[in-house]
Amino acid sequence: MTHDQAPRGASETGDPLLLTPGPLTTSRSVKQAMVHDWGSRDGAFVAINKAVLERLPEIVHGGERYVTVPMQGSGTFAVEAMLTTFVGRGGKCLLLVNGAYGHRAKRILDIAGRAALVQETAEDQPVDPDALDRALAADPAITHVFVVQCETTSGILNPVAEVAEVVARHGRRLLVDAMSAFGALPLDSRSVGFDAVAASSNKCIEGVPGLGFVICRRDALAETKGNATTLVLDLYDQHEAFGRTGQYRFTPPIHVIVAFHQALEEFFAEGGVAGRGGRYAENCRVLIRGMEALGFEPLLPAGLQAPIIVTFRMPATPDFAFGRFYDALKDRGYVIYPGKLTVAETFRIGCIGRITPDQMRGAVEAVADVLREMGLDLRQSAQAA
Amino acid sequence: MTHDQAPRGASETGDPLLLTPGPLTTSRSVKQAMVHDWGSRDGAFVAINKAVLERLPEIVHGGERYVTVPMQGSGTFAVEAMLTTFVGRGGKCLLLVNGAYGHRAKRILDIAGRAALVQETAEDQPVDPDALDRALAADPAITHVFVVQCETTSGILNPVAEVAEVVARHGRRLLVDAMSAFGALPLDSRSVGFDAVAASSNKCIEGVPGLGFVICRRDALAETKGNATTLVLDLYDQHEAFGRTGQYRFTPPIHVIVAFHQALEEFFAEGGVAGRGGRYAENCRVLIRGMEALGFEPLLPAGLQAPIIVTFRMPATPDFAFGRFYDALKDRGYVIYPGKLTVAETFRIGCIGRITPDQMRGAVEAVADVLREMGLDLRQSAQAA
Repeated sequence: MTHDQAPRGASETGDPLLLTPGPLTTSRSVKQAMVHDWGSRDGAFVAINKAVLERLPEIVHGGERYVTVPMQGSGTFAVEAMLTTFVGRGGKCLLLVNGAYGHRAKRILDIAGRAALVQETAEDQPVDPDALDRALAADPAITHVFVVQCETTSGILNPVAEVAEVVARHGRRLLVDAMSAFGALPLDSRSVGFDAVAASSNKCIEGVPGLGFVICRRDALAETKGNATTLVLDLYDQHEAFGRTGQYRFTPPIHVIVAFHQALEEFFAEGGVAGRGGRYAENCRVLIRGMEALGFEPLLPAGLQAPIIVTFRMPATPDFAFGRFYDALKDRGYVIYPGKLTVAETFRIGCIGRITPDQMRGAVEAVADVLREMGLDLRQSAQAA
Repeated sequence: MTHDQAPRGASETGDPLLLTPGPLTTSRSVKQAMVHDWGSRDGAFVAINKAVLERLPEIVHGGERYVTVPMQGSGTFAVEAMLTTFVGRGGKCLLLVNGAYGHRAKRILDIAGRAALVQETAEDQPVDPDALDRALAADPAITHVFVVQCETTSGILNPVAEVAEVVARHGRRLLVDAMSAFGALPLDSRSVGFDAVAASSNKCIEGVPGLGFVICRRDALAETKGNATTLVLDLYDQHEAFGRTGQYRFTPPIHVIVAFHQALEEFFAEGGVAGRGGRYAENCRVLIRGMEALGFEPLLPAGLQAPIIVTFRMPATPDFAFGRFYDALKDRGYVIYPGKLTVAETFRIGCIGRITPDQMRGAVEAVADVLREMGLDLRQSAQAA
């Protein structure tokens, strides 16, 4: 029992550390930027928003060939906007699916009345570029391929570069859901030829939730006029209005965008993808090493594990009550995440957000402490099994 | 010249006062509530969100018959969600239009492939219940009627109660865009029979932008399954998920919602619609009386003017340069709004947000000061004309 101690885990603003796939722990300065008001059409805000839109393509080395189209709402709003703007009425999209976010994309296309087919691999297996090669050869009607860079259902890293090479060789178009990995894992538009990549404010750039965005190849976006099935999710129209007025068509989440601007400054100050991704990779190593030493087993082998979120198998012993484990960790200042897999009973711990490797060591020590409190030694259980 | 004085206009956080139709000036405490992080699936946030959803129907005296379905994005996201969820494939919507927001609703229905027709009155004329009566009698295929409570294009108040009476008499359904008026002008679901009313976080409840919401009659919402044309804007699905899990289907704008919760507390503490609307009405009186004394002419007669935003005719003298007027007012701490009318050259000044009548007197004095600086006496011009 350590309840006489103060919680060890806490953010800069005294909140529990969010070891989740996002919304995640952000810096105090990111949140403090929101304690002002701006007019949505006034110059000060327009300039902040412009800086955000212009800097995002740098992260994928997009140069002048790419443009950011923001989308109010969340990451899924950006994914639906991307799919329904880019896949036209005569289009057909092949979705590479190994988790919930791939299935969600299929549902979006079905509702929009777009032809879509799924090539599925198991949740603990990456998508398969060779099978994609055969599918594209067999079906010339396929116009687009959709892939998720890191499926947070399991935390698996998909081979986006290999997928992009196959798609390009067949002369089709690639749409990427990079949501949970954007800014932490490299995605270089000079070598990975995508038409569009969707992400959001509240993942590895470490902003607060409320804004999605799609980084679009300008030439590809120019071909999408009239494709969209809604007014608000029309990326072509949203982009066209920015070109004409410099402003959003509809009220933007001003405070979220100003916080995102601050988060981008801090992202570049940390060294961009190399710096941010490096810290997350170290968080991930500390987490896995520490949890394995306590007897937990990660779902994925190291080669498939993205440094974003780690899925652990639920301990086999009936004495491990997950609800109690979750609450006891939260009492100590660490919020973890339930599992989402269908193939196995699991839980997840995220590596992203304003979390240091030292705080991750604190999280592992809290797990050890909770196990002691629960009277469990999983190393014994594992050996006994 | 008064440039040696500090600006008189400033919010609690030292920002210019936003005399706009929203996003608007909010209290410091509303914004300060955002300086924390919460997990989107964690109990603390789920409870805050639940309180927001449960209290909103009180504002329309909705009791158990109405339920709030929130929508990430903005007010227009909520309006598109309302129209495409409630007007089914076999439906036909008559839109009462006297400004830009009515036209926007028509565009939404056109894109969604829904039958829609417009009954238009001039921008400075209210919508016409008698003409509606004739239109509904003539076309039994019309299933829904759409009306904007306060058209901020001009600031006009539409006769929603009379419209509702006609719609009910013909056995049709009413959808209301109450955006800029919600919380400031009465809308009583016990006497005004609507199926749904759309509004947003950043208007008269005085929250920050990023969340729309639709207050739906439960029985009407229950009939809408499968109507929606998108995944993210499907109010039926969004509501169903709350019933099943208590959570959003897709990442919510957590900080915006927590700020909105604080804003709702402050709204009820001010006396709800009576208190909030009373302050805005006094702001509006101070504004119009002061501006008229300076020689400005409001577009609308008092009987049509909602206490939300006032449209003033651009002074006829060529010496009145609006850009200079706007900038000089902003230097003094007051951000006003350009006009949006097609019938006349105008500008607008909003009465809503965390603004007191005394601050509005300051705004009028700033206008007087700017006119002196510009060497203009509009009372002379008006007399000369």
